[in-house]
Amino acid sequence: MRAAIMTNWDLRVGDVPDPVPDAGQVLARVLACGICGSDLHMLRFGAELRETMADVEAADPEAPVDPLRPQMFEPHGDCIMGHEFCCEVVDLGPGVSTLRTGQRVVSLPAAFDGDGVHAVGYSNRYPGGYGELMVLDEDLAIVVEDDVTSGVAALTEPMAVGVHAVNRSGIGSGDAAIVMGLGPVGLACVAELARRGIGPIVGADFSPKRRALAGHLGCHEVVDPSDESAIAAWRRVDGSRPLVLFEAVGMPGMIDQAMRMAPRDSRILVVGVCMPQDHLLPMVGIGRELSIQFVLGYTPEEFAETHRIITDGSWDLEPLITGTVDVDGIPQAFDDLGRPDEHAKIIVEPS
Amino acid sequence: MRAAIMTNWDLRVGDVPDPVPDAGQVLARVLACGICGSDLHMLRFGAELRETMADVEAADPEAPVDPLRPQMFEPHGDCIMGHEFCCEVVDLGPGVSTLRTGQRVVSLPAAFDGDGVHAVGYSNRYPGGYGELMVLDEDLAIVVEDDVTSGVAALTEPMAVGVHAVNRSGIGSGDAAIVMGLGPVGLACVAELARRGIGPIVGADFSPKRRALAGHLGCHEVVDPSDESAIAAWRRVDGSRPLVLFEAVGMPGMIDQAMRMAPRDSRILVVGVCMPQDHLLPMVGIGRELSIQFVLGYTPEEFAETHRIITDGSWDLEPLITGTVDVDGIPQAFDDLGRPDEHAKIIVEPS
Repeated sequence: MRAAIMTNWDLRVGDVPDPVPDAGQVLARVLACGICGSDLHMLRFGAELRETMADVEAADPEAPVDPLRPQMFEPHGDCIMGHEFCCEVVDLGPGVSTLRTGQRVVSLPAAFDGDGVHAVGYSNRYPGGYGELMVLDEDLAIVVEDDVTSGVAALTEPMAVGVHAVNRSGIGSGDAAIVMGLGPVGLACVAELARRGIGPIVGADFSPKRRALAGHLGCHEVVDPSDESAIAAWRRVDGSRPLVLFEAVGMPGMIDQAMRMAPRDSRILVVGVCMPQDHLLPMVGIGRELSIQFVLGYTPEEFAETHRIITDGSWDLEPLITGTVDVDGIPQAFDDLGRPDEHAKIIVEPS
Repeated sequence: MRAAIMTNWDLRVGDVPDPVPDAGQVLARVLACGICGSDLHMLRFGAELRETMADVEAADPEAPVDPLRPQMFEPHGDCIMGHEFCCEVVDLGPGVSTLRTGQRVVSLPAAFDGDGVHAVGYSNRYPGGYGELMVLDEDLAIVVEDDVTSGVAALTEPMAVGVHAVNRSGIGSGDAAIVMGLGPVGLACVAELARRGIGPIVGADFSPKRRALAGHLGCHEVVDPSDESAIAAWRRVDGSRPLVLFEAVGMPGMIDQAMRMAPRDSRILVVGVCMPQDHLLPMVGIGRELSIQFVLGYTPEEFAETHRIITDGSWDLEPLITGTVDVDGIPQAFDDLGRPDEHAKIIVEPS
C-alpha cells in the first residue's frame, strides 16, 4: 500500500506491505485521517524528546512500568503516523463477530496484542492513517452513523482531547476561560466550553482564519495577540470571574506567558504538547498562587462521549476541515501546517 | 536602636532611629525573631527578582493592582528584615485600647497605614525583627500565653506557611506525602501532615540534623537523597497511595526534580520560594498528567489557627531552634544558614 513513512525523523512517501489483521482485528481502508500538530512536533523534536525521556527513565530505573502505557516506535524502523482516522472495514480477521465489511468506524489509536499495548500511529507494527490500510481492534471500534461524514468522524480524536482538557480543568458555571492558540486542540476546547455554556470564552491566535473558526464554534471574543493580549481582552469583556487558561500552543515559553497573564488563584491547563525543555518564573506562580494542570489524551469513555456529541450534531465541525490531500500530498501538507495562517485541520484521504 | 540593616543588597549591623508608634500601633521590643530562608534568598537573588517582576508588570501595565498586596522596600533605602517575631509591648500609640505594656505578642508581618499595606520585614518604613524595636498594629497582634516560650511563639509564622500549604494541597486521609527539603518550611509541612494523621510521610534532606528533626515531628521515613531518592523510599514503604509532593527547597531545578519523581496523576505543592528563572520538561508533566500548585504565605485565619495549635502543644517545636544570636551575630548566622547541616531555625534575640 501507499503511505507516508517516517524513518529516522524523516518523512517520505513510498510503498509498504499491506497490514494483515490478526484474531480480533479487522483490515480497514482509511477514508479520512487528520494531520495532528503532534506529528509535526514529533518529526521536529522527536529525537530530542526520545533522548530526554530516556534520561528521565534511566534516572529512576525502578519506577513501576504502567502496563497500559503504549509501546512507541523505534526511530530507525518505519513508522506510519496518523492517529485521527475514520476507516471502512474491508476484511475481518479470525474470530471477529461484531463488525462487518462496509461499516465505517472510528477508534482509539491503540492496539492490544500478545506483546502489550501499541500506540497506533506511533508504532513500527501498527500503521496509522497516513497510509491506505490499517488494522484495528474490533473491541475499540465505534461504528459511524450514516449522516456523519468521514472527515468529521475523524475529528473525534482531536475533539476528545478538548473534552478531556475541559473535564480535567474542573471549570464550571460562573467561570470564564481564555484559550491560547486556536489550532485544532484549542478549537476543541472552545467548542466544548461553549457547549457547556461557559462564558465568556476569549480565544487568542495570530491567524484570522483560526479566530473566525473559534467564533463559529462559540468563542465570545477573539484577539490577535499582536494587537491585544488575551488577558486585556478578558478584562475588557469580563475581568471578574474565576479564570481558567487553556494553553493550546505547545511551544516553549507559552506556560511562562500563561503564568504572566493569569490573575491570582487562576488555573492553567496545559493542553499543548511542548516537547523541548521549557522555562518559567516560579515567583510569578508563587505570588499569585497559580496552579498548572498538565493533561494528555482522553479516556475511552471520553472518546466515546465525544463521538456521541459529534453524532448528535452539537458542534458544527465541517468548517474546521480546511484542506484535503492524498497520501502523496502529506509532506506538502506538513509544510503548509507550519504556516498556520491558512489551515486548521488538513484531512488525508488516501483512497 | 541596634539592627541588622539591608541596603543595596548588602547586610550590615548598625544603629538606626527607634520607630515611633502611630495611632493604633504599639512600640514593641523584639524578644525573638526567626531568620527565614527567604531573607537569605532576598539578599542573594533580590536584585534579579526585582528586575524580573518589574518586567512582568511592565508587560501588562493595565493589570489591576491588588489593594491588599503589601508595598515592598526600595533597595537603596534601609530595610530591617525579620518577619517571624515575638515581641513585648513596651509603649502604646494613640488610641490603643486592647493591648497593654508587658504583654507578649505575635503578629502577621503587615502594617496598615494611610499609604496602604506594608510588608513588615520587607519595608523601608516598618522595621522587622532583626532590630531591637518594632511598631505593630494593635489589630493584628495575638497575645502569647505564659507557657509558650518567645522562641517557639516566633515560629508561628513559618509554621503557618506549612499549615497553608497543607490546606491548599487538598491532601486527605488515604493520601501519602513526600516532603523535599527539611528546612523550617519543609519541617512545618511535616508537622502539620503528621498532626492530621497523613501517612506515610517521606522526608528528604542532605542534613542528618534536619532529618532527625523531621522524624521528631512525625515523618515516617527520612532519606538522604545522596543515598536513596525520596520516591524510591516512598515505593519501599508504600508506593500505592495517591501522592502529594511538597517542594520545600526553593532552588532552581527542584520543580523539575519533583516532576521527574512524581507518579502519574500526583500533585506537586511548590512551597519553596525559588526566585531565579527555573526550567522543566513539559512532557514529563503531560505524560503523567501532573498538577503543580504554587502557594505563598497564609491567611490571617491560618496564622491565628497555627498559633492556637502551638499554644495547645500539639507540636514539640523547641528542638527546631538550633541556635540563638544577638543583633551583631546576624550576618554570621546568615552565613551559617548557608551550610544547613547544622541548623534548622536560628533565633535572633536582640535584647
